Amino acid sequence: MVPAFPQKKPIMHRYRSHTCGALRPSDVGQSVRLSGWCHRIRDHGGVLFVDLRDHYGLTQCVIDSDSPAFKAAEAVRSEWVVRIDGRVRTRPAGTENAELPTGAVEVYIDDLEVLGPAGELPLPVFGDLEYPEETRLRYRFLDLRREKLHANIMKRGAIIDSLRRRMRDGGFFEFQTPILTASSPEGARDYLVPSRVHPGKFYALPQAPQQFKQLTMIAGFDRYFQIAPCFRDEDARADRSPGEFYQLDIEMSFVTQEDVFQAVEPVLRGVFEEFADGKRVTKEFPRITYADSMLKYGVDKPDLRNPLIIADVTDLFARDDVAFKAFKGVIASGGAVRAIPATGAAAQSRSFFDRLNDWARSEGAPGLGYVVFEEENGQLSGKGPIAKFIPAEVQALIAERAGAKAGDAVFFSAGPEAKAAGLAGKARIRIGDELGLCDKDQYAFCWITDFPMYEWSEEEKRIDFSHNPFSMPNIDREEFLALDLDALASEDENGANTKRILGIKAFQYDIVCNGVELSSGAIRNHRPDVMEKAFAIAGYGHEVLEQKFGGMLNALRMGAPPHGGIAPGVDRIVMLLCNEPNIREVVLFPMNQRAEDLMMGAPSEATPKQLRELHIRLNLPEKKA
Amino acid sequence: MVPAFPQKKPIMHRYRSHTCGALRPSDVGQSVRLSGWCHRIRDHGGVLFVDLRDHYGLTQCVIDSDSPAFKAAEAVRSEWVVRIDGRVRTRPAGTENAELPTGAVEVYIDDLEVLGPAGELPLPVFGDLEYPEETRLRYRFLDLRREKLHANIMKRGAIIDSLRRRMRDGGFFEFQTPILTASSPEGARDYLVPSRVHPGKFYALPQAPQQFKQLTMIAGFDRYFQIAPCFRDEDARADRSPGEFYQLDIEMSFVTQEDVFQAVEPVLRGVFEEFADGKRVTKEFPRITYADSMLKYGVDKPDLRNPLIIADVTDLFARDDVAFKAFKGVIASGGAVRAIPATGAAAQSRSFFDRLNDWARSEGAPGLGYVVFEEENGQLSGKGPIAKFIPAEVQALIAERAGAKAGDAVFFSAGPEAKAAGLAGKARIRIGDELGLCDKDQYAFCWITDFPMYEWSEEEKRIDFSHNPFSMPNIDREEFLALDLDALASEDENGANTKRILGIKAFQYDIVCNGVELSSGAIRNHRPDVMEKAFAIAGYGHEVLEQKFGGMLNALRMGAPPHGGIAPGVDRIVMLLCNEPNIREVVLFPMNQRAEDLMMGAPSEATPKQLRELHIRLNLPEKKA
Repeated sequence: MVPAFPQKKPIMHRYRSHTCGALRPSDVGQSVRLSGWCHRIRDHGGVLFVDLRDHYGLTQCVIDSDSPAFKAAEAVRSEWVVRIDGRVRTRPAGTENAELPTGAVEVYIDDLEVLGPAGELPLPVFGDLEYPEETRLRYRFLDLRREKLHANIMKRGAIIDSLRRRMRDGGFFEFQTPILTASSPEGARDYLVPSRVHPGKFYALPQAPQQFKQLTMIAGFDRYFQIAPCFRDEDARADRSPGEFYQLDIEMSFVTQEDVFQAVEPVLRGVFEEFADGKRVTKEFPRITYADSMLKYGVDKPDLRNPLIIADVTDLFARDDVAFKAFKGVIASGGAVRAIPATGAAAQSRSFFDRLNDWARSEGAPGLGYVVFEEENGQLSGKGPIAKFIPAEVQALIAERAGAKAGDAVFFSAGPEAKAAGLAGKARIRIGDELGLCDKDQYAFCWITDFPMYEWSEEEKRIDFSHNPFSMPNIDREEFLALDLDALASEDENGANTKRILGIKAFQYDIVCNGVELSSGAIRNHRPDVMEKAFAIAGYGHEVLEQKFGGMLNALRMGAPPHGGIAPGVDRIVMLLCNEPNIREVVLFPMNQRAEDLMMGAPSEATPKQLRELHIRLNLPEKKA
Repeated sequence: MVPAFPQKKPIMHRYRSHTCGALRPSDVGQSVRLSGWCHRIRDHGGVLFVDLRDHYGLTQCVIDSDSPAFKAAEAVRSEWVVRIDGRVRTRPAGTENAELPTGAVEVYIDDLEVLGPAGELPLPVFGDLEYPEETRLRYRFLDLRREKLHANIMKRGAIIDSLRRRMRDGGFFEFQTPILTASSPEGARDYLVPSRVHPGKFYALPQAPQQFKQLTMIAGFDRYFQIAPCFRDEDARADRSPGEFYQLDIEMSFVTQEDVFQAVEPVLRGVFEEFADGKRVTKEFPRITYADSMLKYGVDKPDLRNPLIIADVTDLFARDDVAFKAFKGVIASGGAVRAIPATGAAAQSRSFFDRLNDWARSEGAPGLGYVVFEEENGQLSGKGPIAKFIPAEVQALIAERAGAKAGDAVFFSAGPEAKAAGLAGKARIRIGDELGLCDKDQYAFCWITDFPMYEWSEEEKRIDFSHNPFSMPNIDREEFLALDLDALASEDENGANTKRILGIKAFQYDIVCNGVELSSGAIRNHRPDVMEKAFAIAGYGHEVLEQKFGGMLNALRMGAPPHGGIAPGVDRIVMLLCNEPNIREVVLFPMNQRAEDLMMGAPSEATPKQLRELHIRLNLPEKKA
């Protein structure tokens, strides 16, 4: 990676003959020139040691009063940028540093020039002292000199290079879509940009290049990708910068869902294997239907590092020979009971079970019932507060369903189905963590498929889109177009037509890694007639569709290919591979959580002239007295 | 480039076994499946020929009434997207198309499925009919299906890939800098983005990532590049999109100007050689000082495809034995006379000279005097209207300076120096074009160097920055810091201190290709003391500097390395390599010249809720009655 400096020219380069990471024992005796930052300066009584640092490494430099540059060297402080001329020599025996590539040599300083002095540092670079994030962001240029952040940012770049290379190798082409554009129907809040030329009108920054990538397909380019900046005016979260983020935006023509999986899976597997630092990466990503995921993992982004699998035991607790009243009541009102296995939990002390119970209460549940399984006379025998309400035969069935054996426990989550599933999902994670069951040395991927196209809106008492209104429903086209809307209008949630529609799946999928959703994707609805029908089912008329998505519809009416894609989040991929839960540790110049750039002073006030030119004036909230 | 489709699987892919560019004589006899757009449909009396097109190519498909799909095929129209199943066969002898990679074969259609019908087309794809730009932009997705635009966009992508690869190979790393940021001092108008979280404050979209790339250097990353989106709210020009454009943004630490040249030159030469389509590319980019360029080419972005070189002949016309009064007057009032050679112009008719004269008048000059050189008795003899005022000896000197010989002419541009130079520069281009002297089959590069740091502001009667205030002056630091500002304050343009300062050059340079400025660049001023002095000379106090560039100054005070860079315009590079004078021919989804996206309807009105959330209201111009 290190560029060739003109070392062989007879005239010495103005700043360096070598980088600070270059010198080796074979260079001993050479006259060299280095430039860099004074990383650490040690005064050993008349002998100064200066660790000189640049992007490429660290070289120990030494000077004593015999050198004509001694006085200059004495004036130098941490983080000053200097050029030194000197001679490479072997370090004295016993002072070598095996961890440093340059650790066998040092440079005796003959000449020293200050290139860039530094004032008092608000944040030291050497050492690993913790500093408040505000200070770190305000002096980001100093923070970025620190080893870990520097390495994270370089890794980010290498990951993006690798994604690009893998996409190109897979036959994809990179395109740039507009950043000053129209509002897109992604559902989040747009950033707006007032137009100077068109008074009263605004551009929007793209929440995603969704429409443009589809238009690129309709324009016939077949395979699109882009490391695309996206903008959402949402409040900050740990895993999302306020303002902007990047996604590996992908779209393909003439493909099925399976083709998207086959194209994307090797790219993600490859880049994760490349940067996993020895962690295992899923060889073949399992496909899990949305319904299965909600049942088995209680969530649509399962962390498969956790081996526990939830089971439904509603029917067992509904049996007449089971006498546990709390669950009976739940079941009677249409709810569900889920069983979460806890491998090896029988060996845990009482406090383990109490902690889980307390946690469940903090989640709003009445508690977390459980049965501990032990072996008695070659038979499985359930113990614990509720075991006595469950006959041995049913205990055995529960153990079988939950995959529990002697020495394990099974916890129960009961309630309305969605709630029971959600709590079971959280309990699964908690139990897995408490018991140390998760193998963290891996990147565990899966696809979640078959998302429902529609859902019942309890508030509005009607059918609404479940996720993405622009995905293709997974149903024969003629059959879909023939669905009876008139019948639907008079039905409630349990009507035959409604049930049929709520059962329709979409060609929509998520890619998940270690419980993090990297992206949703879909085969798009490229048929205007199917789209009109899809919107009509959700109660949106022709006019709404035309008004909001007229541009896109127009394009679909001019010969659109079947197409689909996905857009894995680049920042999230980098966070996973850098093992950083905070996105600001993997972005070069992030804003803080209040969407401010403290270093550059953004956002800031505009001048009256600017506002006038943009045809806007301020409308400030009244100040509190 | 074509991805491998699952051709070998026993089950046929849903949409295609081959792309439309894949079939060859070796495939004859195979059953294949193709999907694509119906490019052209010909009805040869009961036999239909459908040229099926996708991104990869064109395949001729044939069907007649023997096929069960004949009725379906008859319904198909131009630009419908269809899937066909069929058998590959050799084209009848004499009907092969050697220009098409698939031109030896055709596919007999057994089955046809309409995947995406098309309504009436506002713009045909087949054929090369000219359409108004507004129609083309409104239906960009159709226009992009046309061969030339499609090829331009693909070439753009390949050029950017190549730039990236070359930069990485040169030891540079790619970084992403913020897009929602603070106003930057680039001099153009910012696009502003109102902040929802901070009422009354605004982000600015970056005019260039100038400050961020410098901060990246100060953070120690050594070698930065980015294919960077830049935003300037300027009125449209042919070579610049309104709104956004891309630059290959570059910055390097511990470098001299020469290092920047050595790093950038091979990247540009390489990418131009790769995409030049046989045109020659300058092997070693000449370096021309700004002063030399203004003299020899009358412009700071010389088109070196034109071989003509302007000469100064002021002193010759000032001679007592020259009697041409018009020039005498110009010279007396401090002006200059420049000579533009016109190789071979003696053979031109009178109208050639008249046209040039008329053109000069249209440029505001009194005319364009000239002398035509002929050989008489082995001597050079000047002819033409003003020759009689110039003695033979001076004529010979003029011819020598201008490099003219018998058969050539020399034109004269006289006036105040800048005006004379500018007119001479334009005349040089015009003469070169009229005489067909330019070898257009080349990309002629050069560096322009040694831009003056300061210039005299005639309006304000004081010294001001000439180009970029952040470039490093090319003068010893101690000497620069010692310049006497008090003496300066009382001087006019001709004062000794003022003259000395106006003589200071900056480490600033331009890269020029075929008369197009691809970029400015500079070694940056990384010393706060030098920067304060530089601004003080131009009359800006400490406070102005702190207020406007405080963030940057703060960073320079914490150990900044010497650094410099450049930022060649990506769109301009692509325009040159696609031979397109209009930037909208090389951008995927450009806005029109009124900064509108006609396809997506941007800019558009915001809702009252949006405006309220952003703490702004409209301030519309009053409507004209």
